[in-house]
Amino acid sequence: MNSSPRRGRRPGSPDVRAEILAVARARFRREGYDAVTMRSLAAEAGVDAALISYYFGSKAGLFAAVLELTLSPADLLGGLLQGDLETLPQRLIPTLVRTWDNPDTGVPLLAAMRAAASDPGFAAMLRDGIHRQLVERLAERIGGADAHRRAGAFVTQVGGLILTRYVIAAEPLASMTADEIVRALGPALRTALLGPLPTARRTS
Amino acid sequence: MNSSPRRGRRPGSPDVRAEILAVARARFRREGYDAVTMRSLAAEAGVDAALISYYFGSKAGLFAAVLELTLSPADLLGGLLQGDLETLPQRLIPTLVRTWDNPDTGVPLLAAMRAAASDPGFAAMLRDGIHRQLVERLAERIGGADAHRRAGAFVTQVGGLILTRYVIAAEPLASMTADEIVRALGPALRTALLGPLPTARRTS
Repeated sequence: MNSSPRRGRRPGSPDVRAEILAVARARFRREGYDAVTMRSLAAEAGVDAALISYYFGSKAGLFAAVLELTLSPADLLGGLLQGDLETLPQRLIPTLVRTWDNPDTGVPLLAAMRAAASDPGFAAMLRDGIHRQLVERLAERIGGADAHRRAGAFVTQVGGLILTRYVIAAEPLASMTADEIVRALGPALRTALLGPLPTARRTS
Repeated sequence: MNSSPRRGRRPGSPDVRAEILAVARARFRREGYDAVTMRSLAAEAGVDAALISYYFGSKAGLFAAVLELTLSPADLLGGLLQGDLETLPQRLIPTLVRTWDNPDTGVPLLAAMRAAASDPGFAAMLRDGIHRQLVERLAERIGGADAHRRAGAFVTQVGGLILTRYVIAAEPLASMTADEIVRALGPALRTALLGPLPTARRTS
């Protein structure tokens, strides 16, 4: 037994990882990514900072785990990809808008965008996650020779929606309802997924 | 005459504004937006900090002026809007990629994206600039009842390209050539500008 304020839990016991995550989630939400230190998180969770590194690798890794816990983007996308690709934009946009408009999920997501702009380590994790969890899985669902660039174009447009509406909050996107966004962006998203694409010029 | 290292220029003389801009441009580029202080800029330019505020209002205003000097987005867009809307994506994308790939312009632009994520004052200026200089002017060029949401959708997609390729550097966009981006994103951009849009559900 140690004498920290949170007695009775041993480092390495099954709930320690969850407890670190819960403390980190509250702190990141309250203070933003840049202001939180691993040392202060460790103190609040009543564990050694080395244990946080053991479980999560780095602050960026811990933050990624908090986001995963809050959102499960893989589960979310998995459900969306089971439906018809033709209707994916009108199913995805309301889900995305609801998630970002809700402070419980939107605040950590916006913090993630800010962390990606300021922390190269977190940007690298986000880059990898976007490619593996979104682009690759969407490309697999689309299939065919153009799948990868269709998926890239689609994810790019979804990123543009997040940037314009949430990070910069520029009009007209900032004030649109989910229905209005579906009408404005849906056709372009469907074009990226399913529309005719110009033939690539091959340099053999 | 004062005794600062840069003697002979009087505050308020015609070249002071340009001199402040030149110093600010070099410093923002070297150190990024957050690290530069108005006080240190004033010292390097050999002027009083109040004079910088007089000319530019705030650090955000000074940075916006540096970007304007580096890029003249209004001139750039003006030229692009004179051509056919049908070919706007294939004319815009190579210009945008060249501008962001070139460190002389790309480094301050990336700093602007970071400043928009960290400084609410700069985000407000960017938000206003995007709306007045890009969305409104593009909507005017498009014309018709859907002009505003078409322009919003188009600017959103261009924002997505910047976010995905430059801020996060996610694949497949990060490694594409300008031609490949035109092929992947061009059809969706044309759909936003000129394609059929679903009818709005009116709630009268």
